[in-house]
Amino acid sequence: MKNFHLTFVIFLLIFSSSCCHKKNLNRDLDNLSTWNEGPAKKEITAFVERITDSLNSDYVRPSDRIAVFDNDGTLICEKPYWFQMYFMLDRVKKLVKNHPEWKTKQPWKAILENDTAYLANLSNRDNDEISISTQAGLTQEELTRLYSDYYRIGRHPRFHALFTSLTYPPMLQLMHFLETKGFRNYIVTGGGIEFIRSFSEKVYGIPPEQVIGTHFQYSFTDSVSPSAVRLSPANYTVVVKEEKPDNIALVIGKRPVIAVGNSNGDLQMFEYTDDRKGPSLQILIHHDDADREYAYDDGALQVLRFAAKRKWMVVSMKNDFKVIFR
Amino acid sequence: MKNFHLTFVIFLLIFSSSCCHKKNLNRDLDNLSTWNEGPAKKEITAFVERITDSLNSDYVRPSDRIAVFDNDGTLICEKPYWFQMYFMLDRVKKLVKNHPEWKTKQPWKAILENDTAYLANLSNRDNDEISISTQAGLTQEELTRLYSDYYRIGRHPRFHALFTSLTYPPMLQLMHFLETKGFRNYIVTGGGIEFIRSFSEKVYGIPPEQVIGTHFQYSFTDSVSPSAVRLSPANYTVVVKEEKPDNIALVIGKRPVIAVGNSNGDLQMFEYTDDRKGPSLQILIHHDDADREYAYDDGALQVLRFAAKRKWMVVSMKNDFKVIFR
Repeated sequence: MKNFHLTFVIFLLIFSSSCCHKKNLNRDLDNLSTWNEGPAKKEITAFVERITDSLNSDYVRPSDRIAVFDNDGTLICEKPYWFQMYFMLDRVKKLVKNHPEWKTKQPWKAILENDTAYLANLSNRDNDEISISTQAGLTQEELTRLYSDYYRIGRHPRFHALFTSLTYPPMLQLMHFLETKGFRNYIVTGGGIEFIRSFSEKVYGIPPEQVIGTHFQYSFTDSVSPSAVRLSPANYTVVVKEEKPDNIALVIGKRPVIAVGNSNGDLQMFEYTDDRKGPSLQILIHHDDADREYAYDDGALQVLRFAAKRKWMVVSMKNDFKVIFR
Repeated sequence: MKNFHLTFVIFLLIFSSSCCHKKNLNRDLDNLSTWNEGPAKKEITAFVERITDSLNSDYVRPSDRIAVFDNDGTLICEKPYWFQMYFMLDRVKKLVKNHPEWKTKQPWKAILENDTAYLANLSNRDNDEISISTQAGLTQEELTRLYSDYYRIGRHPRFHALFTSLTYPPMLQLMHFLETKGFRNYIVTGGGIEFIRSFSEKVYGIPPEQVIGTHFQYSFTDSVSPSAVRLSPANYTVVVKEEKPDNIALVIGKRPVIAVGNSNGDLQMFEYTDDRKGPSLQILIHHDDADREYAYDDGALQVLRFAAKRKWMVVSMKNDFKVIFR
């Protein structure tokens, strides 16, 4: 039996070394091989070693090992628009036959006319209106089903790849690495909660109950059979900035030990984590690689200033990520 | 080494058999020994066997195995008042020095004068006002700390035991049994979320992130250092009736397979579970044992009618529970 196992392992090793780097990722989740050797990788592994060593004064009990990850721009490419926006653009085009008024009214008009200049500068209000008009009134199951069809086919305009393949291998490895160290990883995102849940388990290994995100007010009704939870347009809650710690407090009930994000929307989550009693780690992903992905500081200037002041870790995608995409 | 292990196991067996039934419970969590042989126990075990058998058409994947439990009256004695009320009564007496107006204003006046007739018939509005006036403005950590001190000392007026010892062993066994079958158990309660979280891990083995309950609007602020999530008096959300499925949809994102409750406040959670695609089980705990606990149908008449109509399981505490308290 032992010999068979050994043969199998050798076969796997030969097989994996003969494949390209792409295919190896799933087998490499246990280490941080897609990170370059450098200060970021060193600090992360040293931190985790310290807090999981029961003899160290920084030891953190397994039940307190919570890590929170922003989604767009942290785990997955967020340019030129965040991934979910493409779904909503498609959906506006499908639903316009029931909403002829959209043809002359912003922001729907811009979507229907592919007015990229307008779309590149959508206001928060525009975003909310698009989200609400394309999703409210559905049951939670109906929306999840719509998304499940979409995430398998949506493709990125520059990289011509499925959006869900544009996740960052170093981040997938980091999540898996933390899990092996007893962490419970949560996604805490301004993206729609049903949207992220529709693929988080398959793409990130994160089950629906570990996703915290932008959500509608839910409204259970049994007046139609079967009873269901419907998405009410009232009290649409965008989970960015203060809403990130607020929703972490509601769902998890304790301060995370590790927070990972990339924009001003993650600032409060970083502060909340940094101010926990005991050790914590803040990891800010900096988009500085125009060749392999995008280089941008817009939407991150404030958090970059805080990071410098409060000594949060800034990860350079250019220097710290050996691989950006699979 | 093997011999040592064997000796140790034999020692444990002798030790445990020499103890009274009370002390055995923790070791007996793997079975349903505190349930009488009868239709309820039979149906529960048959259901679980069916949905965990991968060859059965009712098979449910481990990731979908979610069970939700009401707290007061389902896991723990809720008479004469729900357990948390005692904390709030104590707290009103402590805080009155800063609120002299409470001496002449209901419902605080009734608490300060121990007006049991008034207290036995508190309105929902009274409950909310007491909850808000004794808790709002604190940080989540401050409130959790207050509760942590309390749950260890609060005693029941009739049974003269710690409240947290007045949990029902058959329910503790049921939760543990389901966990061994791959279920993730959640408490979904009208009780305050910080209150339940302060003892749920120690008393029920349920970690804070598996507690859904009545909550304040959270409000993160970094204007005072350290930054913290505070409980804002606005939008106090009592998680009963429709709010149970609504909050399950938000936090878990899928319909539970098993729901356990004891009152009209659990009706919508039962419907939501019953209407899931695929098998589900609704367990209504009926308080019909005046000798060993209390017998009451008030607050449960509507759900009892639904249970009869929709063939939900009704558990008789008198006939199905071999033990009510440890």
